[in-house]
Amino acid sequence: MAHTNKHYLDLPGSYFFTEISQRVNTYKKTHPEKSIIRLSIGDVTRPLVPAVIKALHDATDEMGQPSSFHGYGPEHGYEFLIDEIIANDYTSRNVHIEADEIFVSDGTKCDIANIQELFDPSDTVAIIDPVYPVYIDSNVMSGRLGKLINGIWSKLIYLPCTIENNFIPELPTQHPDIIYLCYPNNPTGTVLSKDQLTIWVNYAKKERAIILFDAAYEAYITDPTIPHSIYEIDGAKEVAIEFRSFSKTAGFTGLRCAYTVIPKELKANTREGNEQYLNMMWNRRQTTKYNGCSYIVQKAASAIYTPEGRKQIQESIQYYMNNALIIQNAITQMGITAVGGINAPYVWIKTPDNLSSWDFFDLLLQNAGVVGTPGIGFGPHGEGYFRLTGFGSYEDTNKAIERIQKALLI
Amino acid sequence: MAHTNKHYLDLPGSYFFTEISQRVNTYKKTHPEKSIIRLSIGDVTRPLVPAVIKALHDATDEMGQPSSFHGYGPEHGYEFLIDEIIANDYTSRNVHIEADEIFVSDGTKCDIANIQELFDPSDTVAIIDPVYPVYIDSNVMSGRLGKLINGIWSKLIYLPCTIENNFIPELPTQHPDIIYLCYPNNPTGTVLSKDQLTIWVNYAKKERAIILFDAAYEAYITDPTIPHSIYEIDGAKEVAIEFRSFSKTAGFTGLRCAYTVIPKELKANTREGNEQYLNMMWNRRQTTKYNGCSYIVQKAASAIYTPEGRKQIQESIQYYMNNALIIQNAITQMGITAVGGINAPYVWIKTPDNLSSWDFFDLLLQNAGVVGTPGIGFGPHGEGYFRLTGFGSYEDTNKAIERIQKALLI
Repeated sequence: MAHTNKHYLDLPGSYFFTEISQRVNTYKKTHPEKSIIRLSIGDVTRPLVPAVIKALHDATDEMGQPSSFHGYGPEHGYEFLIDEIIANDYTSRNVHIEADEIFVSDGTKCDIANIQELFDPSDTVAIIDPVYPVYIDSNVMSGRLGKLINGIWSKLIYLPCTIENNFIPELPTQHPDIIYLCYPNNPTGTVLSKDQLTIWVNYAKKERAIILFDAAYEAYITDPTIPHSIYEIDGAKEVAIEFRSFSKTAGFTGLRCAYTVIPKELKANTREGNEQYLNMMWNRRQTTKYNGCSYIVQKAASAIYTPEGRKQIQESIQYYMNNALIIQNAITQMGITAVGGINAPYVWIKTPDNLSSWDFFDLLLQNAGVVGTPGIGFGPHGEGYFRLTGFGSYEDTNKAIERIQKALLI
Repeated sequence: MAHTNKHYLDLPGSYFFTEISQRVNTYKKTHPEKSIIRLSIGDVTRPLVPAVIKALHDATDEMGQPSSFHGYGPEHGYEFLIDEIIANDYTSRNVHIEADEIFVSDGTKCDIANIQELFDPSDTVAIIDPVYPVYIDSNVMSGRLGKLINGIWSKLIYLPCTIENNFIPELPTQHPDIIYLCYPNNPTGTVLSKDQLTIWVNYAKKERAIILFDAAYEAYITDPTIPHSIYEIDGAKEVAIEFRSFSKTAGFTGLRCAYTVIPKELKANTREGNEQYLNMMWNRRQTTKYNGCSYIVQKAASAIYTPEGRKQIQESIQYYMNNALIIQNAITQMGITAVGGINAPYVWIKTPDNLSSWDFFDLLLQNAGVVGTPGIGFGPHGEGYFRLTGFGSYEDTNKAIERIQKALLI
């Protein structure tokens, strides 16, 4: 008789977004005359830019001709894309990355969920909180986090990011083997300065821990002093894996392309104390369990590094960031604390009057017809917070802000 | 200190294809005047058909307009594709499959490598041999197969398919929890009749085992009595997961699209004896660790179900199958035993004079300038066999056959 992976039983149901839908639907039914504006969107809404569209058409034509057809590609990605990534995302920032340290894939979600396979199931995990729930769920499925007791995973080291520590995580008091950091952060929209990130790199070196650095939102950084890559920090190549995505950078959420960087010097130990190189292990993982990102999509990704592609994606990013700034300014002017919106498309709001995340959700829905995301959905330290995003339209964003002002200033 | 997944150490190096390259390169250097023909190709070589190219262009244009842009799609695939799959691949064969039993992905390799995550690491695995090495490697990475001793995995139940049993695997004498079957088979090109497959379904029911049925080559079946889906067998929905791919069906190896079918009644037990539904578990796995197949690729996949798309992909399939038949006939006429080539693009040759796989490889390379794949690369029971494929061009296939005839009939 076949038996199931017992750790799946530890996962709670994922009712969070269902609950949001249900509350919105109930409101719609009881207030059919009211319009709803969603500032809860975590997905891009603007179309692919012309340079990307042209690259897709060109690559499609290639695939229709015998002389230029592409079958199976290299699991780790085509050289034409890897070369652009190295030149534009790393060399330009004085970071030396080699071609076989880059692994192109169809998404950061897959990579960051699969990466934990490389590690021992008894390794200890530290995760900033609140954060993208995939880090937690993928580790639960491997039995690394223990049991969920009153909303807290028994073996997980939480790294709280709240107003009390100005959203800068403190070093853990208990040793972690693996540390998940996400900057610019989803959902808080906060960043780490070079000095703050250096503290983490040095800590990881001291503890011989591995940092899994999710930089999916790096393209949204506007402050020139903020590092875009963890490898801008000295010594980071000895301790960190970095995840980058074209999803938010270039609107590829429906096209699917990302990459993961694993430096060749990065290693962890076997339980017997021998060193193993994580780059080689991930290469073995990907060649065994993955078959490469679509050729035409990789061609599309390489088009964002052309002068016109670069200019066009910047326009979209600025459009979203303008919305985020409008939200951030308006909320702050109402005397409500909000962070983010400067180096990320997310604005993280401390709910007024110590309302719970869900109570504030209901307040905005009922009184303003605006939908956001309750912070509790991103982890226990998201309670009492609320996320709005810049991914809506300019018109909707302004309209939503007007309505929120009216609703909250009554 | 971070620790590595100890099971990766059990994996042998994957030197097999490197060894092939090295021998070919050495031959090229020592015989610069000779041309090499590769009938070792496991990848399609003909371009995408016009209906698919048109669908890609149309979907690309959609992605460039705000009104028709698609961001994140459903992790399990778009309804427009799932509906076509159900109607054309199942309803047409009197198999009832529901929309939420289909999981569209970017490749069968990923799905069949990841599916073992749903099962307990101590479950016993049976695998037909020779076969696609991913089944084995993915289970080694989870510690399910024990140690490799003299080329044999200590905990794996091998189901030999050799000339002695006419390439029909016998039921195992030891209980398996999970059974991997691949029909039409890569590398042997053999199939199972409805009666033969029924024996396996009944056995799995009796043993309460799960069959993982890889049907990536079903489009190559020419014999109308051979089942295309395991669900054509009564009761199979209680015991089997089926994997289907657009890679070989429609030349999508570089585009990336596949689907996996997990019937809702399919269940396995927890170690405590409670039943768990595998469809729900896979849904949780995919929503956590996967982010959906590219929208434009799913549009391309749905185009193969149009009348013109269907006709066009059939032409490519017939082209490859014609090559395979040429190889099969020629080899057989030389008095050498060969199977396959009728319902799959692979011809599986029993090496003459009991040569080893590698010795026959060297013989064909040296004396005919033809490259094939030594059977030993597909598992221990591939020793003494050799694979040629129909994926080359018609011209090359004929030229290779002439050369092989000359070389072997001397």
